[in-house]
Amino acid sequence: MTALDLGFILFDYAAVAVFGATGALAAARRKDDIVTFTFFAAITGVGGGTLRDLLIDAPVFWVDRPGYLVVCLAVALAVWLLGLRSGRMTLLLWLDAVGMAAYAVVGAAKALSLGVHPISAVVMGVLTATFGGVIRDVLAGEPSVLLRREIYVSAALLGAAAFVALASLGVDRLVAGGAGFVVAFVIRAGALRWGWSLPGFKGKPES
Amino acid sequence: MTALDLGFILFDYAAVAVFGATGALAAARRKDDIVTFTFFAAITGVGGGTLRDLLIDAPVFWVDRPGYLVVCLAVALAVWLLGLRSGRMTLLLWLDAVGMAAYAVVGAAKALSLGVHPISAVVMGVLTATFGGVIRDVLAGEPSVLLRREIYVSAALLGAAAFVALASLGVDRLVAGGAGFVVAFVIRAGALRWGWSLPGFKGKPES
Amino acid sequence: MTALDLGFILFDYAAVAVFGATGALAAARRKDDIVTFTFFAAITGVGGGTLRDLLIDAPVFWVDRPGYLVVCLAVALAVWLLGLRSGRMTLLLWLDAVGMAAYAVVGAAKALSLGVHPISAVVMGVLTATFGGVIRDVLAGEPSVLLRREIYVSAALLGAAAFVALASLGVDRLVAGGAGFVVAFVIRAGALRWGWSLPGFKGKPES
Repeated sequence: MTALDLGFILFDYAAVAVFGATGALAAARRKDDIVTFTFFAAITGVGGGTLRDLLIDAPVFWVDRPGYLVVCLAVALAVWLLGLRSGRMTLLLWLDAVGMAAYAVVGAAKALSLGVHPISAVVMGVLTATFGGVIRDVLAGEPSVLLRREIYVSAALLGAAAFVALASLGVDRLVAGGAGFVVAFVIRAGALRWGWSLPGFKGKPES
Repeated sequence: MTALDLGFILFDYAAVAVFGATGALAAARRKDDIVTFTFFAAITGVGGGTLRDLLIDAPVFWVDRPGYLVVCLAVALAVWLLGLRSGRMTLLLWLDAVGMAAYAVVGAAKALSLGVHPISAVVMGVLTATFGGVIRDVLAGEPSVLLRREIYVSAALLGAAAFVALASLGVDRLVAGGAGFVVAFVIRAGALRWGWSLPGFKGKPES
Repeated sequence: MTALDLGFILFDYAAVAVFGATGALAAARRKDDIVTFTFFAAITGVGGGTLRDLLIDAPVFWVDRPGYLVVCLAVALAVWLLGLRSGRMTLLLWLDAVGMAAYAVVGAAKALSLGVHPISAVVMGVLTATFGGVIRDVLAGEPSVLLRREIYVSAALLGAAAFVALASLGVDRLVAGGAGFVVAFVIRAGALRWGWSLPGFKGKPES
């Protein structure tokens, strides 16, 4: 295993863990039981990558490596034991930002390495980064992250695009990946810290 | 490329474009930003065909041909720039009818051409025609098209069945496809114009 | 075909039929039309197994054997004709328990037989048993089975785990399957009969 591979694998487990934590925290807010904690942690943690693998016809990454599921179980137990305290909701948002930025890069990198068209690879990065959260929100009956005006999908999009552009220009993939992560994270951090948002559609709605 | 193939490809892009437009119009009603416009356009435009390809184990059609995604982006920009005006909601419904009828045929045709059982091919036509809209409605938090009593799924079903029946009888596929399109569109048009609907279940609900 | 195979196939059709019935009963409560009845019966009946097959990269089970869809159609017609009567809602819950227990075993057994890692095979059992109902609830706009505190996912989990453990220890698969079915069903039956539930998360929610 090369250093490059190891870097992406660490990114990958880190993203599963932090997304899994956001799933477990969603379950905590709902006062769910430990099984539902684990279910939400797993769906949120591996949901985006699962969709990516189905779309690019790769073996679904966690089926042969159940270590990913064990990570989700551990995260669910940790959230259950540590509980919610003041500031946890803020932590949830920042963890989610880290997971989103990591997955935008990891998702695009996996697609690129399997020979997927660069434009589609960017889309895979965006889907990997956002779909776990989308499934979490739909199943929890909360308004989807897609529907909030705060910048989220855009951050994943620009991070994945930066990575794919740099990698296509021949930049070392780990460097390109770091750059893509920073782009996605900084934009999302700006949205969290200063409420950055894109302008909404201005047309008059019909009644 | 034969004329037959070309016909289906044009059908296919047209269906992606009109479904994409219905996704963007859903975003417009919600006052979403341009990224969400594009996301909804893409999910609605390619969602049904993506499910079909996953189910019949074909390569997902847009992954190697990102032109489909570019069409969705263009449609999202067009809706953003042109905006909603009186009558747009009606236009949305009619565009959706065209897309539904085209996809019912295209979805069934792709399945048939890959050797899928005729009954399953009809189901693929229905799913291709309806699932983009279902995902759009679920993500937008609106009542799914499945839950309205107005005829919608039935139109896709009869159109796909007409196409598959004619194609199985040896009728030229482009002719059979045109007939299937007309069947689906006319039935849906009747529902839009005269409020055709199937009778609902009459049993008394339990309290 | 061996007796073992036949046993699992009967299990499989039975699970599709009873889950399909729960989908049709959900449509009945909503006063939907016969096409929507069939749609809900099919999605609920084959949804979990479809997700399993996509995840383990097996051909989706019903695409080449549309008999499964015909079963869903027959069940939808039966519910339509027989209607809801007092006690039907209770019947719905018990049918759902039978389907869940059967699918927990069938889902795990199919994954094991394709060489999937035992931990992932348990997950496939849980997904097969629960996802049809999850999709049914999301599409019907009802609170997902995941969000209720009553024991449901846990029953599928323990049934699938019991089957996989016994099968891994070399117990005859049909015996192991029967044992797994009983474990899942008895736990779910206890939840239905005596309201068994797991304790919910106790941490204070943030305001």
